[in-house]
Amino acid sequence: MLIVGERINTSRKAIEPAVRDRDVDFIQKLARDQVEAGATYVDVNAGTFVEGEPEALEWLVQTVQAAVSVPVSLDSPSATAIERALKSVDFGRGKPMINSITAESERFEKVLPLAKHYNTKLVALCMDDTGIQQEAGKRFEVARKLVNDLTAAGIALDDIYVDPLTFPIGTGSEFGVAMLDIIRSIKKEFPGVHVIAGISNISQGLPVRKLLNQAMTILSMDRGLDAAIIDPMDRYLMALIAATRALLGRDEFCMDYITMSREGKFEGI
Amino acid sequence: MLIVGERINTSRKAIEPAVRDRDVDFIQKLARDQVEAGATYVDVNAGTFVEGEPEALEWLVQTVQAAVSVPVSLDSPSATAIERALKSVDFGRGKPMINSITAESERFEKVLPLAKHYNTKLVALCMDDTGIQQEAGKRFEVARKLVNDLTAAGIALDDIYVDPLTFPIGTGSEFGVAMLDIIRSIKKEFPGVHVIAGISNISQGLPVRKLLNQAMTILSMDRGLDAAIIDPMDRYLMALIAATRALLGRDEFCMDYITMSREGKFEGI
Repeated sequence: MLIVGERINTSRKAIEPAVRDRDVDFIQKLARDQVEAGATYVDVNAGTFVEGEPEALEWLVQTVQAAVSVPVSLDSPSATAIERALKSVDFGRGKPMINSITAESERFEKVLPLAKHYNTKLVALCMDDTGIQQEAGKRFEVARKLVNDLTAAGIALDDIYVDPLTFPIGTGSEFGVAMLDIIRSIKKEFPGVHVIAGISNISQGLPVRKLLNQAMTILSMDRGLDAAIIDPMDRYLMALIAATRALLGRDEFCMDYITMSREGKFEGI
Repeated sequence: MLIVGERINTSRKAIEPAVRDRDVDFIQKLARDQVEAGATYVDVNAGTFVEGEPEALEWLVQTVQAAVSVPVSLDSPSATAIERALKSVDFGRGKPMINSITAESERFEKVLPLAKHYNTKLVALCMDDTGIQQEAGKRFEVARKLVNDLTAAGIALDDIYVDPLTFPIGTGSEFGVAMLDIIRSIKKEFPGVHVIAGISNISQGLPVRKLLNQAMTILSMDRGLDAAIIDPMDRYLMALIAATRALLGRDEFCMDYITMSREGKFEGI
């Protein structure tokens, strides 16, 4: 299970000023805390700076890489920002992740060459020029087109992380099942591809969102989700992910689960 | 979702002396607390008393019924104990549940007439005279035989609650998936039947069992589990069950989830 730590994102209140002020200590602590909590990638997002985004993203990459040894996930819709950040990436620690490409024609054409040239992993969001389809079958069509177009362009299946996207269940009771159906369909049609999700969209507008996010993560893992963009410092969520791996037979002899317990990762839970 | 509150069981340390001393206040508080927490049935088990079981079970039924208005679940392998308890059951509050029958020939022959005569719900454990089959396919065969034999004998499908049983994942990494597969197979072959489980067997011998029990409940609900023998006073578990119903589209407009939140059921979570 690939865990992309989502906390370094300027749309979060505490992060914006820290990035504006180039607060190295603050950002590096956040990177270290997430990796210690189990993040295998650290996501960096400076989207709120708009014109200043490329420079801020580059600074985030340099700052995070100096603190932790895991690869970064470059979280931006802007090819300009991604390209500038890529120039500072340390490729020795494993492939970085571009987060993200879509089937929108302009974005697809601009981001694809970067993924190819720099040989990165790539998050592919299931949306195109018409937006995000509500119906599971139609959204899956977008996923299929994305995977086919990316592999045709030379991206390895193993480097593609399809994000099914979702609408909040507060706006439609069927949206949870739709997301789960898409994950299953993707894994069935493309067994070698990865599925990633920013689970928390599902709970927007509802109370005690972490309960919904936790249960949805478990259900999504069952359908084949093998990467998640989450807050690894939600210890209960990380513990439930470990429990789910054990229950689904993905943790031989429950060794990882038992080890986490021995290391005190479940303390206070 | 039918929630059978499991706490009144003399195999639990605090319960045994309370039943031995016929401590009405203690048992009634436990019954009330469970119903307040969401139990729709209260399970009563006096199995540790062996010879004294029938009398103790009868007392438990009378004592619990005087405190709460939900039906009881008579938890015993003994037809003698079940029959004595049934004579004190208040049928006006809805069908009681016999917990349980199996495909073991003697138990089947002795318990079946009680379920028929008293028109009860019936938990059917997937085991026969050879014990509990480890392999999912074989255990499902026992489930199939049980459902067919019970319906042939005149028990309505809607009154049957099949319990797939499970071995702990600590003794075999495949046992979680096996249990989930059996639940799915049962619901596929007999759409009208119910599936119930005492989830906690799955986590025996492992640390922080509640995490495994919580994740397994969520996964089992996804496969079609619609009843659970659990501790309803595990507030986190009850909250995750509510979240899962919402995610699976079983809670229109998330109204139950939102109501529980407004009632403070998620407080401190």
